Amino acid sequence: MALVVQKYGGSSVADADCVKRVAQRIVATKKAGNDVVVVVSAMGDTTDELIDLAQKVSPLPPARELDMLLTAGERISMAVLAMAIANLGHEAKSFTGSQAGVITDGSHGKAKIIDVTPGRIQSALEDGSICIVAGFQGVSQDSKDITTLGRGGSDTTAVALAAALNADVCEIYTDVDGVFTADPRIVKKARKIPFVSYEEMLEMAASGAKILHLRCVEYARRYNIPIHVRSSFSQKEGTWVVASTEGTEVENAIISGVAHDRSEAKITVVGVPDKVGEAAGIFRLLAGAEINLDMVVQNVSAVATGKTDISFTLPAADSKTALDALNKAQGTIGFDSLRFDDRIGKISLVGAGMRSHPGVTAKFFGAIADAGVNIEMISTSEIRISVVVAQDDIDTAVQAAHSAFDLDSDQVEAVVYGGTGR
Amino acid sequence: MALVVQKYGGSSVADADCVKRVAQRIVATKKAGNDVVVVVSAMGDTTDELIDLAQKVSPLPPARELDMLLTAGERISMAVLAMAIANLGHEAKSFTGSQAGVITDGSHGKAKIIDVTPGRIQSALEDGSICIVAGFQGVSQDSKDITTLGRGGSDTTAVALAAALNADVCEIYTDVDGVFTADPRIVKKARKIPFVSYEEMLEMAASGAKILHLRCVEYARRYNIPIHVRSSFSQKEGTWVVASTEGTEVENAIISGVAHDRSEAKITVVGVPDKVGEAAGIFRLLAGAEINLDMVVQNVSAVATGKTDISFTLPAADSKTALDALNKAQGTIGFDSLRFDDRIGKISLVGAGMRSHPGVTAKFFGAIADAGVNIEMISTSEIRISVVVAQDDIDTAVQAAHSAFDLDSDQVEAVVYGGTGR
Repeated sequence: MALVVQKYGGSSVADADCVKRVAQRIVATKKAGNDVVVVVSAMGDTTDELIDLAQKVSPLPPARELDMLLTAGERISMAVLAMAIANLGHEAKSFTGSQAGVITDGSHGKAKIIDVTPGRIQSALEDGSICIVAGFQGVSQDSKDITTLGRGGSDTTAVALAAALNADVCEIYTDVDGVFTADPRIVKKARKIPFVSYEEMLEMAASGAKILHLRCVEYARRYNIPIHVRSSFSQKEGTWVVASTEGTEVENAIISGVAHDRSEAKITVVGVPDKVGEAAGIFRLLAGAEINLDMVVQNVSAVATGKTDISFTLPAADSKTALDALNKAQGTIGFDSLRFDDRIGKISLVGAGMRSHPGVTAKFFGAIADAGVNIEMISTSEIRISVVVAQDDIDTAVQAAHSAFDLDSDQVEAVVYGGTGR
Repeated sequence: MALVVQKYGGSSVADADCVKRVAQRIVATKKAGNDVVVVVSAMGDTTDELIDLAQKVSPLPPARELDMLLTAGERISMAVLAMAIANLGHEAKSFTGSQAGVITDGSHGKAKIIDVTPGRIQSALEDGSICIVAGFQGVSQDSKDITTLGRGGSDTTAVALAAALNADVCEIYTDVDGVFTADPRIVKKARKIPFVSYEEMLEMAASGAKILHLRCVEYARRYNIPIHVRSSFSQKEGTWVVASTEGTEVENAIISGVAHDRSEAKITVVGVPDKVGEAAGIFRLLAGAEINLDMVVQNVSAVATGKTDISFTLPAADSKTALDALNKAQGTIGFDSLRFDDRIGKISLVGAGMRSHPGVTAKFFGAIADAGVNIEMISTSEIRISVVVAQDDIDTAVQAAHSAFDLDSDQVEAVVYGGTGR
């Protein structure tokens, strides 16, 4: 008998009919002889509706209370899902994050899981129950206050529970069939990837592939929990995210896929005195403002002026904070001016095979150049190459790279359920 | 400095604007130098909407999961109320029933409070916070499952917290100005009662006055917590429910008020053998079916047949269960037939003064008879007289009794906010 942890997102439980269909799927897994723990998000737009309600009474609600409010969303979905399962004749019990032993730090709205002590889940499993656990939420170790985990929280809950329960697999149900070689909305011939390593998935998540959140994949890698990303709308095998793809059909693939990201912006600090420590001062300043930089490029210094330009990318949402911090420090740092561009995009080629295959970089740049797209910035890791281009060129560049590395499928395979509004 | 526990019902926090107004009232109480603990119900129709959602996935949802679902309602209202208070510049913290230490037995949907251990509330009060506590909910002592208290649950939460915290007063905010001498929708000249004793309030609650639930008054009497029932839509003094009205302006009133109840039905068991133990057998049977009987009348046995009729009233909602149980046992008990009437009503005259004032009963019956209303059943306690009449005669009988005991006000005083849909 295997222990399966399943996670269903908000679109999979959007209304009563969706909940009933998910319940049938869960019962089928149980009937196949598995112990089943289900992590569920809030139904459909519930979270947005609760945020709207909060905004109506307070423009800046206290984080503790916002967490208390938002966690009502999963409380509703998990109880309703447990009812739907009971209606099919199987015992089901719902548990809040706190009841399931999801212990976090005290950072409301973006809490980190410190520990998982799922004693009550284990007892309920031993009694033969299907366990439904609220995703996205926990309880703080010190103050015992209710916390939420922030973006990707429910996926992280599922993987953390799978690790604590020593589960055989963590199935992440979503509205697409798995992880694709590129976004099927851009590349019609994108293929589903049957197996991908944690490292590649991490690079893809960091490069804008939205299907799994970085934290969730990091957690899975640390505890070696196989993740199976699959569609809640079909029975097809999805994508397995595992420690190693050795022995699988994709072992010899050089490139796993092409990811893209439209959510970043670029800031250039113009005319920075080219002295030791100047760049460090800028990055210390931005770190102090809690800005996560992505790519950084320092131009070669102009001999005539002894000055240089420093460009970096960052989440577009953090732009104002970063620009304000830099402006305030202009006197101290002594740069000439700031330039800002939020019409950029990032394209990343990810593949464990590039470690041992020289020439990948040249081929990638060549394909993008041949498509008539200008590269503004470059950054690389051992298994990833990223370039920044103008946002309007993203589709062209992604398609060009996808074809150049023979990733195109013979047929249009991808079905993007997301396009239906789910 | 006084400690005030306030309870706001669902109609007082029906939407964001209502929540903001309640927040102002709470802050005013705090500013007046009091420590404030607020018990809040779910916003407006939230509970009904959650029940509808449950019905969509399961015709008979498990009680444990229904409680989990319904408690999301107060979670939302309490967090939003805390935000609204914070927006006015005061520290507010919300607590679930479990966090507030409301320990119950395990009867989902109708749990009883076993203990209240409000350590977290006390700490938060010491830190200067206003505490917002979810009404209607607790956590079961044995299984640590979330429970709900059933009808009148939020009022009971408020009184139980007031007792555990040794509060000076428990203010119950509602949509009317207080407790009236009769339902102002029936008796235009009904007066607000400034003071009433626990005993009288208990009799009124048991007789159909809906303003306070029986359990809540019982709890207040046991721990001697003064309850102040007042309107959340005005600043007027409401009705004080206290141990004794001695020394108050109403000390010498004989009658407190006239209550009525349309929610009961009458069953007559016709032709019961008039032998020792036959009636006991019927009542044992009904008790086994968990039917709470109210009034019981056994007719004088007819000499010719040696048989008698037994009539009793019960909540109309339990009628089918009772009739089924009796029908099944007809062979054992040996009665002739059953008669059923759900077009009845009960009118009760309540007043501590009737203990020492003979003639009250005669005057009450006289007033009803003079109004042309036939009395079907009678039951009395030391401070209450109740009669059953035809449902269509209720208004007439209530008005007649109200006038006969000089309860009519000189002016139309009552404002029934309930009539506005709240």
